[in-house]
Amino acid sequence: MIIVMSPEATEQQIEAVVKKIQEYGCDANISRGVERTLIGAIGDERRINQETIDAMQGVEQSMHIVKPYKIVTREWHKENTVIDISGVPLGGNTVQVIAGPCSVETQPQMDAAAHYVKAAGCRLMRGGAFKPRTSPYAFQGKGVEGLEMFRRAADAEGLPIVTELMDVRMLETFMEWNVDVIQIGTRNMQNFDLLKEVGRVNKPVILKRGMSATISEWLMAAEYIAAGGNHNIIFCERGIRTFETAYRNVLDVTAIPVLKRETHLPVIVDPSHAGGKAWMVPALARAAVAAGADGLLVEMHPVPCDAWCDADQALSPEELQQLMRELAGVAQVIGRDI
Amino acid sequence: MIIVMSPEATEQQIEAVVKKIQEYGCDANISRGVERTLIGAIGDERRINQETIDAMQGVEQSMHIVKPYKIVTREWHKENTVIDISGVPLGGNTVQVIAGPCSVETQPQMDAAAHYVKAAGCRLMRGGAFKPRTSPYAFQGKGVEGLEMFRRAADAEGLPIVTELMDVRMLETFMEWNVDVIQIGTRNMQNFDLLKEVGRVNKPVILKRGMSATISEWLMAAEYIAAGGNHNIIFCERGIRTFETAYRNVLDVTAIPVLKRETHLPVIVDPSHAGGKAWMVPALARAAVAAGADGLLVEMHPVPCDAWCDADQALSPEELQQLMRELAGVAQVIGRDI
Amino acid sequence: MIIVMSPEATEQQIEAVVKKIQEYGCDANISRGVERTLIGAIGDERRINQETIDAMQGVEQSMHIVKPYKIVTREWHKENTVIDISGVPLGGNTVQVIAGPCSVETQPQMDAAAHYVKAAGCRLMRGGAFKPRTSPYAFQGKGVEGLEMFRRAADAEGLPIVTELMDVRMLETFMEWNVDVIQIGTRNMQNFDLLKEVGRVNKPVILKRGMSATISEWLMAAEYIAAGGNHNIIFCERGIRTFETAYRNVLDVTAIPVLKRETHLPVIVDPSHAGGKAWMVPALARAAVAAGADGLLVEMHPVPCDAWCDADQALSPEELQQLMRELAGVAQVIGRDI
Amino acid sequence: MIIVMSPEATEQQIEAVVKKIQEYGCDANISRGVERTLIGAIGDERRINQETIDAMQGVEQSMHIVKPYKIVTREWHKENTVIDISGVPLGGNTVQVIAGPCSVETQPQMDAAAHYVKAAGCRLMRGGAFKPRTSPYAFQGKGVEGLEMFRRAADAEGLPIVTELMDVRMLETFMEWNVDVIQIGTRNMQNFDLLKEVGRVNKPVILKRGMSATISEWLMAAEYIAAGGNHNIIFCERGIRTFETAYRNVLDVTAIPVLKRETHLPVIVDPSHAGGKAWMVPALARAAVAAGADGLLVEMHPVPCDAWCDADQALSPEELQQLMRELAGVAQVIGRDI
Repeated sequence: MIIVMSPEATEQQIEAVVKKIQEYGCDANISRGVERTLIGAIGDERRINQETIDAMQGVEQSMHIVKPYKIVTREWHKENTVIDISGVPLGGNTVQVIAGPCSVETQPQMDAAAHYVKAAGCRLMRGGAFKPRTSPYAFQGKGVEGLEMFRRAADAEGLPIVTELMDVRMLETFMEWNVDVIQIGTRNMQNFDLLKEVGRVNKPVILKRGMSATISEWLMAAEYIAAGGNHNIIFCERGIRTFETAYRNVLDVTAIPVLKRETHLPVIVDPSHAGGKAWMVPALARAAVAAGADGLLVEMHPVPCDAWCDADQALSPEELQQLMRELAGVAQVIGRDI
Repeated sequence: MIIVMSPEATEQQIEAVVKKIQEYGCDANISRGVERTLIGAIGDERRINQETIDAMQGVEQSMHIVKPYKIVTREWHKENTVIDISGVPLGGNTVQVIAGPCSVETQPQMDAAAHYVKAAGCRLMRGGAFKPRTSPYAFQGKGVEGLEMFRRAADAEGLPIVTELMDVRMLETFMEWNVDVIQIGTRNMQNFDLLKEVGRVNKPVILKRGMSATISEWLMAAEYIAAGGNHNIIFCERGIRTFETAYRNVLDVTAIPVLKRETHLPVIVDPSHAGGKAWMVPALARAAVAAGADGLLVEMHPVPCDAWCDADQALSPEELQQLMRELAGVAQVIGRDI
Repeated sequence: MIIVMSPEATEQQIEAVVKKIQEYGCDANISRGVERTLIGAIGDERRINQETIDAMQGVEQSMHIVKPYKIVTREWHKENTVIDISGVPLGGNTVQVIAGPCSVETQPQMDAAAHYVKAAGCRLMRGGAFKPRTSPYAFQGKGVEGLEMFRRAADAEGLPIVTELMDVRMLETFMEWNVDVIQIGTRNMQNFDLLKEVGRVNKPVILKRGMSATISEWLMAAEYIAAGGNHNIIFCERGIRTFETAYRNVLDVTAIPVLKRETHLPVIVDPSHAGGKAWMVPALARAAVAAGADGLLVEMHPVPCDAWCDADQALSPEELQQLMRELAGVAQVIGRDI
Repeated sequence: MIIVMSPEATEQQIEAVVKKIQEYGCDANISRGVERTLIGAIGDERRINQETIDAMQGVEQSMHIVKPYKIVTREWHKENTVIDISGVPLGGNTVQVIAGPCSVETQPQMDAAAHYVKAAGCRLMRGGAFKPRTSPYAFQGKGVEGLEMFRRAADAEGLPIVTELMDVRMLETFMEWNVDVIQIGTRNMQNFDLLKEVGRVNKPVILKRGMSATISEWLMAAEYIAAGGNHNIIFCERGIRTFETAYRNVLDVTAIPVLKRETHLPVIVDPSHAGGKAWMVPALARAAVAAGADGLLVEMHPVPCDAWCDADQALSPEELQQLMRELAGVAQVIGRDI
């Protein structure tokens, strides 16, 4: 940590900061410049409480040098982590497309969806049994009954399933229904109690980026899960909130190469929620794979216009098939397959 | 709801939309313009699934006319709601300042804090027993032990207490310790399961605005609580996330008059978390009261530089006293007291 | 335009709005709903001053139905516009990569740059003679001398040139040096007097998106140019400003398909300024082409680490060559070439 | 400047950075930590080209310690600068309210406006002769004829005038009409050629904050003017662009105390453009003064609903009078007058 003293800082104030750094078990390196004195804290700076330093007299600002997260960094683990999802590898050379409807509606709908997911060449299936809806008066998902329908439909096609966990009290039920990947939604990225709980189980977790979460906060949220012992974490970029109103969210493709450099964990993209319209999905999906995403989370519904939620953003089975062909071409350009 | 058809929309597509509107139990009013045809849905438009309409062929866009929330609106309840917090009114003519430390640390710290809060003329006390920390390695709060210390210190001064609930599983404990106001933090504004639960209890709830939540989403989150039967909801503006990095958040003062117009519920402001620095608090606090806030949530610590968290944003007891004097002057200008 | 009257609006207020609409030469269609009355203005709604309507008593809100821009819309001109840049087509099936250094430095630097641009297979060259620098103390560009160097270097390789115009008083000089494409920078997107002037000349214009400009404002800025008679406008997405600080800007790939749907004009992308680091450029460039961009604006410097500005974001000649190979592959997937 | 080397940086890379720092005329202080080596550049770090350092091998990141602006900082000039506007002081103990219509329309409108401005107790008048309009088809201002009307109306009441300069070619005309304060609009905050020109004249300049400009960029834009010799600069906060759509902009009150700490120059606020609705103005104006603003820029029109632009945001003469009374009360609380 670097502490910048203000030009008016007295010797006593400088000494007080040095003493405080030493109390935290670090050494201090003093550098007296023309206008300001800098104090470098040498040692494990994660032990230092930055707010306490900032509150000391004569301190102008302080800056962390070491990242506040650890297990999730590529510094800590150089190689890409490949996560085994009930036999399907995510994070390796193969780009995985996880497809399926926004929400579980009926058994026939899920059976048809599973069939089309498989037919398009996807190896993992998504679907929501518990839905985070902005309005309390909107359809809230089929709940446990939905998990059952989903499990049955996916098992028939041999597809591992991905579904969202919103309430910590449902975790046990998710384990009973053997959900293959637990999804933590964008609104819960900093629901720390939920993160701690999924950190204790032995299931891959997809951690969606908060609507306005920085890369650093996102890595930190993953560190919450990792600190509990569960290192099978998949980052999912799903669009961020900006000033633009012409589309729901802005898909942040830059996050893909940046995260791949910063962490050893897989990074996937949800082009469906990002744009919010089905016609935008192919362009965004191709862009994501071109930028290096390890996978995609794509909404597909057997009959999009009949979908109970997000009807305007689901691909039809034919559109998914067409998209898979294009993505195969893009993946090949950068030496990957699909 | 208004549905705008694209210039190329066919008669069949227009008819299909009309039929769909009627299926939702509404009437349709067709208005044929020079370039486009508009279809107005007349009746209870909350029944209409907008995404389904948007997914129909020939539809260019659709717009809700009626607000998606109801119980929280001023249309539904014209008069200001005054919430009784164990004898202290919030939302009436008196501006209430809720002061106290960021986190509960020790019994002596809480006893001293309670003493200073009371001495400054505040009638309500804040303090965190469970802390949402960005890092899993940071101090997470004293937990239940903290609630006990807080209760004891506040009772000695006759102050009702405000504290944050993060985990739905702790709600019963909050009721046992008779927490007077349950605070829902910014990261949990859309933790819908938590909102549903606090909607079922008979305790005032402070609902902090999500870091990048729109006014509409915030009102909708309050509606989740209200829909469960608990109408004692207090909105708390605490700064929003923007591109600016010179300070932690941007305090959105415009939200105060806008919310006061839109809802009958009280609106308070947290100037401490907004700016993130103690020296910014007086200016922001005065601005909030000048703009019409019904109360403030202010961090004060007996010895700020010793605080275990947010050391750089807590006021000292003397600073709080000075602030209370200024706020009394500002309140008077707009015909209120403190 | 749709005008939504408040639930309390009186008959007199409704009549006053109808009268005002008629004064603007439009017809009014009144639709009385259960909770609110809507008034539709039929005719050329661009004549209506929305602010005047919003200021009328009883009006809750009003919404435009017709877009405020015209010449630039695809509604007005269905086919893609292909712009002829001194013999090089932009906006057609071939993706054009415009490469070159951030700023013109010396004749040898420009000669070398032109050579490498050509060698990599690019057909257009970029370079800045007038530089918009955040600091008044930073290098401001070589000015007219730079234009001369640029022209000489590019002519030797037969490359049309693209360079930024900041000051309206320099337009004549740009014409004298026969600049092939005039670039309007992000900070000048709403410098309306500059837009009007370039609208009067017969040269293609690259209009960079303002740092926080909405799609609608961007189209409107282009309409300023088009209204003057110059329809040779190229949109250039270069990253938008958000809350994220891990990289300079967020490249908004969603803007590509959205603009291509909304306008007939070409859309290109500047991956260099978006990310701000050379190592991000290939991923972002591939993503842009995969999402449908008609071209790219890429910084390349003969010796990046010696560049006088933006040294950390320029590709080396070898990196540009490698990138061109990858882009050719991506273009092929969507049926284009490079 | 602090340069943080990556954990893998070699001795050679460290030496290269040290050598480069010395080339810029600074000394280097090397601090070898447990995980990383830091290099501090001691001397005038403004000479160092950060991008060049960042592009060097082994460099992880670099940070400026000294602010990039100088003349405008409070470090450079400790006391508040009070600007003399044709006899009216701005930046001292008296809060100045600059009122007037959005745009100059007719002589009678300006005469009436000047009368009401004076009657309300304001000492400066605003009005736009050249209007930056989003649409090329909207009213663009009365131009030079407007300047003449404005001058005549204001002179009759003895009011100095404030009006916006958009085009550098009109500066001479502004001098001829003896405009008392030149306003640089939000869209031109980084129109560097315009800033340079107004830096050469001897007239106070109001520099409005760019819609998404950081405090640092804003100070830097002011430095452009100051570097030319004109130190009579007034900052004007007018709301920033965020994700919120319920109001036009978010008035950033935090910017007021932050700027007052950072610069010696006056800071004023435009509550009219911030919120965009007349009914929001009083709350925002009171908040601005309560937060320490040195003045306000308020839209007032003799007959708001007849205004040619921004009809929905202008106060009526009576509303302005009422506001002045409230502001006097708020100013008094913090020891100022109006």
